[in-house]
Amino acid sequence: MVLSSEIREGEFAVEMPPARDAGLVFVGRIRTPWTSRLEAPRQGRHDGPVCRLEIFEPWVPALKGIDFYSNLEVIYWLHLSRRDLVLQSPKNNKSTRGTFSLRSPQRPNPLGTSIVKLVGIEGNTVLVRGLDCLDQTPLVDLKPDRCEFTPLAGDLEGE
Amino acid sequence: MVLSSEIREGEFAVEMPPARDAGLVFVGRIRTPWTSRLEAPRQGRHDGPVCRLEIFEPWVPALKGIDFYSNLEVIYWLHLSRRDLVLQSPKNNKSTRGTFSLRSPQRPNPLGTSIVKLVGIEGNTVLVRGLDCLDQTPLVDLKPDRCEFTPLAGDLEGE
Repeated sequence: MVLSSEIREGEFAVEMPPARDAGLVFVGRIRTPWTSRLEAPRQGRHDGPVCRLEIFEPWVPALKGIDFYSNLEVIYWLHLSRRDLVLQSPKNNKSTRGTFSLRSPQRPNPLGTSIVKLVGIEGNTVLVRGLDCLDQTPLVDLKPDRCEFTPLAGDLEGE
Repeated sequence: MVLSSEIREGEFAVEMPPARDAGLVFVGRIRTPWTSRLEAPRQGRHDGPVCRLEIFEPWVPALKGIDFYSNLEVIYWLHLSRRDLVLQSPKNNKSTRGTFSLRSPQRPNPLGTSIVKLVGIEGNTVLVRGLDCLDQTPLVDLKPDRCEFTPLAGDLEGE
């Protein structure tokens, strides 16, 4: 496991500004088979294991109609990440890249996004395939995948 | 413009819990041609107008290498949205849908995500096509699109 204090050669951390511009409420918890970064896949696969999105109250009624979609976009909070790196060295050499040119979990706002396949619903829990995050990752949002959504947008989207 | 206090027939708002589970720092500001929801498109188009992602310090160096990608994922904060709706009525009738089955801007954590086409970089500003958000929308994150990223993941991703 990478220590959160580790800085590799060529990496650059900034003084992290206070993260008070907006506040998140965790709407659920993600259960996956992976309890350390060494085990977790780099990117989820749609034939990967079933993972569980456990929705908290008062948000459970917001699941109504979600079974209409086979592809969902999941947004989650990578709670173990450091947030102050602007240059990173993925291969641990001098060739650094900017954080915005990587999908690394270390970023100013450590939000992960995945497109997953809906497997089923059990009460307050959504079963999906395609995630790569650690067990107990906080869930931030869940919505139909934009690709699948497009043809229906005129009928269903927006206000 | 829809008033933020408006509730349509069949819609359901909950007591919004305090949004203190995690804090965001705005890393930039999005400039688009649209200043009201009536003007903004429902979904961005890759042949739409060029929009500007103005990156704030200290995050500008995090752009290094971003010109390698033609498709980027943009995450932004829909700052005008109400957050307490769990059932919504997009067509303003009794047929409500759960918030998680919509891409409506009204959601517990009003995060928008778009896949955009990179047009160019000018100093601290990234020019892109494909957005649909209002002018002055706060920018939360910017990363290579997962689709384009896949073949290189083994070389470039991770921490």
